[in-house]
Amino acid sequence: MIEIIGPLSGPASSSGTASASAKHATLQKQLIERLQQAILTGRLPGGSLLPSSRLLAAEMGVSRNTVVIAYEHLAAVGYVIADKKGTRVSPLSSPTARGEPQASSGVPDVAYAARVDRFAATRTHVANSLPLTPGTPALDRFPLGAWRRSLERSMESALPRALGYGDPAGEPALRDAIAAHLRMARGVRCDGSRVVITEGAQEALNLCVRLFTNPGDIAWIEDPGYRGAKAAFNLGDLTMVPMPVDPEGIAVPSDAWRTHAPKLIYTSPAHQYPTGAVLSVARRLELIAQARRCGAWLIEDDYDGEFRHTGEPIASMQGLVDDAPVLYVGSFSKTMFPALRIGFVVLPRAIAAHTEAALQEMLRGGHRLEQLALAHFIESGEFGRHLGRMRRLYRERQQALRDALSEYFAPAQILGGDCGMHLTLRLPPDIRDRTLVERACATGLNPRALSGFALQQRADTNGLVIGYGSTPADRLAASVRVLAELAGLPADRRSV
Amino acid sequence: MIEIIGPLSGPASSSGTASASAKHATLQKQLIERLQQAILTGRLPGGSLLPSSRLLAAEMGVSRNTVVIAYEHLAAVGYVIADKKGTRVSPLSSPTARGEPQASSGVPDVAYAARVDRFAATRTHVANSLPLTPGTPALDRFPLGAWRRSLERSMESALPRALGYGDPAGEPALRDAIAAHLRMARGVRCDGSRVVITEGAQEALNLCVRLFTNPGDIAWIEDPGYRGAKAAFNLGDLTMVPMPVDPEGIAVPSDAWRTHAPKLIYTSPAHQYPTGAVLSVARRLELIAQARRCGAWLIEDDYDGEFRHTGEPIASMQGLVDDAPVLYVGSFSKTMFPALRIGFVVLPRAIAAHTEAALQEMLRGGHRLEQLALAHFIESGEFGRHLGRMRRLYRERQQALRDALSEYFAPAQILGGDCGMHLTLRLPPDIRDRTLVERACATGLNPRALSGFALQQRADTNGLVIGYGSTPADRLAASVRVLAELAGLPADRRSV
Repeated sequence: MIEIIGPLSGPASSSGTASASAKHATLQKQLIERLQQAILTGRLPGGSLLPSSRLLAAEMGVSRNTVVIAYEHLAAVGYVIADKKGTRVSPLSSPTARGEPQASSGVPDVAYAARVDRFAATRTHVANSLPLTPGTPALDRFPLGAWRRSLERSMESALPRALGYGDPAGEPALRDAIAAHLRMARGVRCDGSRVVITEGAQEALNLCVRLFTNPGDIAWIEDPGYRGAKAAFNLGDLTMVPMPVDPEGIAVPSDAWRTHAPKLIYTSPAHQYPTGAVLSVARRLELIAQARRCGAWLIEDDYDGEFRHTGEPIASMQGLVDDAPVLYVGSFSKTMFPALRIGFVVLPRAIAAHTEAALQEMLRGGHRLEQLALAHFIESGEFGRHLGRMRRLYRERQQALRDALSEYFAPAQILGGDCGMHLTLRLPPDIRDRTLVERACATGLNPRALSGFALQQRADTNGLVIGYGSTPADRLAASVRVLAELAGLPADRRSV
Repeated sequence: MIEIIGPLSGPASSSGTASASAKHATLQKQLIERLQQAILTGRLPGGSLLPSSRLLAAEMGVSRNTVVIAYEHLAAVGYVIADKKGTRVSPLSSPTARGEPQASSGVPDVAYAARVDRFAATRTHVANSLPLTPGTPALDRFPLGAWRRSLERSMESALPRALGYGDPAGEPALRDAIAAHLRMARGVRCDGSRVVITEGAQEALNLCVRLFTNPGDIAWIEDPGYRGAKAAFNLGDLTMVPMPVDPEGIAVPSDAWRTHAPKLIYTSPAHQYPTGAVLSVARRLELIAQARRCGAWLIEDDYDGEFRHTGEPIASMQGLVDDAPVLYVGSFSKTMFPALRIGFVVLPRAIAAHTEAALQEMLRGGHRLEQLALAHFIESGEFGRHLGRMRRLYRERQQALRDALSEYFAPAQILGGDCGMHLTLRLPPDIRDRTLVERACATGLNPRALSGFALQQRADTNGLVIGYGSTPADRLAASVRVLAELAGLPADRRSV
């Protein structure tokens, strides 16, 4: 037997310090592992008789008890079968046990979900912290001290209780704080019981899909539009119908309600991503009335709604009329920081009872300390003060970006800017946005190609989506100058 | 006009302290809101002509500029239309604007996803911190001090950088730490690049479903089995085929591979939930060989695998042979604490390239501080020491529970206990488990009904699933005595 499984060695530090019981345990573990390996690799084939415990103990130089326990363990988990005739190796069905070579046996034809290939077709670059990245806030201006105090406070007051499972829909304190904030700042009609905390806005979108659609259902999507909404609809195996976007926001052809009656409609009315259009009130009301008529749900992704730069804030679509068929979605990825991953959806009053069981099974809660800290951060006014400071900062940065674009890309057609942290620059047809973005990435700049957000490519989807949230004003001009050079703009189109 | 929109009031604290510009801003905001409300409620119907800015300014007692800006704002967002003939209310299509009563207009026939009703059918009580709750660890023994030091350390070294978006698959440091731990403790064959961090084990299950199945595909599930697996399969609209469980674990009828060829198979081999069966090696190898043959994936949920109480630890199924078609799933909800919500899946080497784009769109990363802190907690050895302490504690508690069950429910048929934090007690047919659990909950105890985990009710699915993780040994006996009393066991069946 020793030629099959090899001799056993004592504990590594065998210099007398290891106790007898530790040595025994090590030998026993070794013996079990060696026997298992020999069985799995076929060196001890199925059906072969193992030596008696007395014989093997003598051969391996261990106590008989060590072998008895090893055999018992192997029998308990099925490697060997012990009966009156002795201990035999189980007839195992592994290809390895039959001596087939491992290398060729890999996973032969991997069958993926159909949706995996739909994703592959739409992939582009991933968000990071380079200049001009859209969607990244000014993290160096985040009030870390105040946030850590809120965290500290929730640790002191809620541990160890808050280590355990909490409410699957999130901490009641946070849901109440969000509801109060949304009522005042965004005109949302809600209370904490209708707010469900999610893993960022993305899981809020997934939740909407899971609650209200079946595979194959029709979902409308803004085109060009937010990639995260496409991802959520893809995951739900929905049939996506692109809806054009004009300067008043999502522009639904009048017959679409009949010819492509939707179950779900994704909108970003406060500041359409990426064109920056603000959805007009007339269209908001029309969407609400038509959605109600055909039993569809509107997802209102209040993207950038907190960072309004011009005029009075426009209240949310959800709060425009009573019981609007609106699922209001938001997150703290921009207003706080991306790694926080706290988002939410405000569910309609009407659905609470019917969906309770499903929500209990779908949601798991968690991250309770962070949620309690955020509740405190909002209630103590820190959140509001932070938003105010960021609004002023982003206004300055937007102006610097506008100035630079007007200078280096004149005559520049700039879209958006009423809210948020990005502007969109239309490009003339002779400058392809994807080519320019590739070159920009190579120099350490990270704008996005407008065409990457479009399902249907058109002349007006050639452009750059340029973030100014995380880039200081004095770096924006230099970055835009580099972009213009990369675009090969002739000197007479630049005013320098 | 003033009779429609009411008079404007100055700022609340009008005692001279408010600056002129603050007063102006307040009046302007008020004017906009009043006009919006009048338009939305139909008091200013679509098409009606508004007074000139000069006239309205005089009537309301504000500067003409205030009215001009208000009209501009209302025009910009679509409430009014301004042309040469003056400013008119837009023809809005809201039911409210048409004067229809709000109360009756609610959401008429809400159409939910079919899966919502499937959930409703299987709902039971939710986890909490009462005695005998299965699945809750000993949170009062969690080393909070060491964990807070790890958190503190990651804040000091990684902020503000770690506020931003990170790798969608999780922090590389944590993925490496988990891979190293799994290789040593569980025999998993992996490196950090194959570990994907998820929002608890539940999202890991959802990820497996999303990557490898289409709606309607066949998925096998242990019966009785883990409810979270059913939830994940439900969300993926899979056709669930229940597989019986016997003392050797999941027991697949030999013809099932042909008659119900699966795409996905859920197993909990280390300690089947809730029966506690340990899957024999023979069956592990058979599952791997058959799954490979028919292109199916095995989900190995290593539930409780870290808390092995008897014999040598059994290595994971994933590591049994090279390139096993196994998706290894785990979480830190039991080994650390539930609210941490960090789980993971070890993906097969073969799929990395094909699924990269889909994973980038499906995952968002986040919780970077917690992930970095956990990486440090594992690497510094704190995690291993904590596991060791908890193993000893749970062994003591399990023995106390066994003793109490033998005393009060004699002759007690107790299942499981090789791993984990629960035992399962079979009940005689005259004691219905759901009835007993309802009574127990009313007295503040929280065992689960075994039948609640079964898709197909049988005589042997009548029992109690009893957690001992969070209940001190000296409270277990008293709790079990209460259970026996509630079960109405005759005095002669108790030894007291």
